[in-house]
Amino acid sequence: MHEDTKLALIGFGNVGQALARLLISKKEELARRYEIIYRVVGIATGRHGAAINPDGIALETALHMIEAGGDLSALSLIPPSTDMTSFLHACHADVLFENTPVNYATGQPAIEHMRTALEIGMHAITANKGPVVHAYHLLSELALSKGRAFLFESTVMDGAPIFSLWREALLGARLSSFRGILNSTTNLILTLMEDGISFEDAVIRAQEMGIAETDPSGDVDGWDAAIKVAALVTVLMDVPFSLQEVERQGIGNISEAMVLRELELGNRWKLICEARREGDRIIASVHPQVVDAQDPLFTVMGTSSAITFQSDVLGALTIREEDPGPHTTAYGLLADFIHAVG
Amino acid sequence: MHEDTKLALIGFGNVGQALARLLISKKEELARRYEIIYRVVGIATGRHGAAINPDGIALETALHMIEAGGDLSALSLIPPSTDMTSFLHACHADVLFENTPVNYATGQPAIEHMRTALEIGMHAITANKGPVVHAYHLLSELALSKGRAFLFESTVMDGAPIFSLWREALLGARLSSFRGILNSTTNLILTLMEDGISFEDAVIRAQEMGIAETDPSGDVDGWDAAIKVAALVTVLMDVPFSLQEVERQGIGNISEAMVLRELELGNRWKLICEARREGDRIIASVHPQVVDAQDPLFTVMGTSSAITFQSDVLGALTIREEDPGPHTTAYGLLADFIHAVG
Repeated sequence: MHEDTKLALIGFGNVGQALARLLISKKEELARRYEIIYRVVGIATGRHGAAINPDGIALETALHMIEAGGDLSALSLIPPSTDMTSFLHACHADVLFENTPVNYATGQPAIEHMRTALEIGMHAITANKGPVVHAYHLLSELALSKGRAFLFESTVMDGAPIFSLWREALLGARLSSFRGILNSTTNLILTLMEDGISFEDAVIRAQEMGIAETDPSGDVDGWDAAIKVAALVTVLMDVPFSLQEVERQGIGNISEAMVLRELELGNRWKLICEARREGDRIIASVHPQVVDAQDPLFTVMGTSSAITFQSDVLGALTIREEDPGPHTTAYGLLADFIHAVG
Repeated sequence: MHEDTKLALIGFGNVGQALARLLISKKEELARRYEIIYRVVGIATGRHGAAINPDGIALETALHMIEAGGDLSALSLIPPSTDMTSFLHACHADVLFENTPVNYATGQPAIEHMRTALEIGMHAITANKGPVVHAYHLLSELALSKGRAFLFESTVMDGAPIFSLWREALLGARLSSFRGILNSTTNLILTLMEDGISFEDAVIRAQEMGIAETDPSGDVDGWDAAIKVAALVTVLMDVPFSLQEVERQGIGNISEAMVLRELELGNRWKLICEARREGDRIIASVHPQVVDAQDPLFTVMGTSSAITFQSDVLGALTIREEDPGPHTTAYGLLADFIHAVG
């Protein structure tokens, strides 16, 4: 058996909490299959304080406190810092799980969290797309120089294995293009509109279901899809690619009449993410497209996602995921964790 | 740079030849990305003799000789043996690519080729389902004890990453069931029948296209699909499972009228492979099923394949592959090769 692996969590919202629940339920299996014994030594939240305990924080207790609206500081053995650099130094952890909200424009402060963790010798794992799009090469090189892992499986199609597929399985293959549905909220909205309700009502319905955010613009204007495209190009095509380079159009102009007209013709409107190599350049876009019944993306409904890869060695290879949620995002983080320390 | 990796090939039909072409075209990339320098020191065929040359056999020359109907013995530096055990010992190779035709009943002689290779310290890679279904645990344990790899990515959905997905990417996940279309020939026949031609004519058409074999029973009676189900259960669920335990029904009773009737209703007949855990037992089957338009398998047409996995950590995860062929089977062998020695 290895020594205990000490974990620190920054961000303890839906995803952080789902990760805590998964760590609890997989505890015995991690020990048996991978000889991984962990304890969580630090949790820092945005609005519920922070806790550091070198002997291990009881995750069940932390979850109960958050559910009751409490403050985690009560669980702290030492006075916790609200400054994340100090928090990370004080944790003396082996692995950081970074799950703060994405900042499309700069990737901060998540990049700084990841950089600090790697600098002090931690593996750095995130579900946040910001560090991937804004600092992939910086953080990858830092991780390499420190002999630590920088992993981010959950940033695209949450826990479905996309990055690990290319990193671990598709050896010797070269990605030439991809095409997919990568934003759950807009796909759900378009699915709801097939029942004959307006875009506005579909957004409200998606908000009531807990899928769309209060300000839905990050999804409906295509920002979330575009940053995922930029992340995939950057990592899988190994070409630094900014969010601004993705031609982007949201679904705000798709009316219920347009949806119903195509449905009658046996087609569907979908928000399609695409990128392809053209010589040394990459052309990438997010825009609404009509797809027909032969298209592998035609049957991707609700919050499901899918992506089709074209490479130099295989025909079209499609990965499709149904029913995503915080628990599947948490699984992506767990898989990264096992990769890093297993 | 590593020392040259020495390769031996048993079987040099469509797949073996496609592997040779891929090895040639990826030669520079293997050296650059993985520091793999290879040379082929032995090729043994069923009907075109065998060649052994410690200095390396020119693959282009071997391909030309086979295309011209020649005998490879002319390329041999030493008198080649037609006995495969002697051949393997004489090769002094590091890696075996075993691509002989499948033997559903016993897995032989492929198992013996793999066993011999592992015994003498070679990595053993195959596109042949026989050794996986009939000797998975034996060969895995032998490989482990010898510190060598026993890999077989190409046995299910050819080069699409199925085994490596579970081995390398889906860490910490537990497979509870799968469902898929895994036999290209029957899916092509059912697709052709949607044009209103009979089962018999569709078989002939598939034979003319080079997809169905002269004796099509291995495909149309469900043997190929069933052995793939047994291989997946054995490896991914880690339960030894024989071909006989797969409830099996082919597509011979599906008439053109049945196909057209369902098509009119918006459904399709598909040969569905399924397996699921029930307590400690596995229930597995291959049988024709009507699938509706919402089914992820509905749009899988022609020679394409797909499989949907249910696990304890993700929603349904589907892998789908279009346009398989000997070149994609060869890619699976190449990916295994990089895994083994990279």
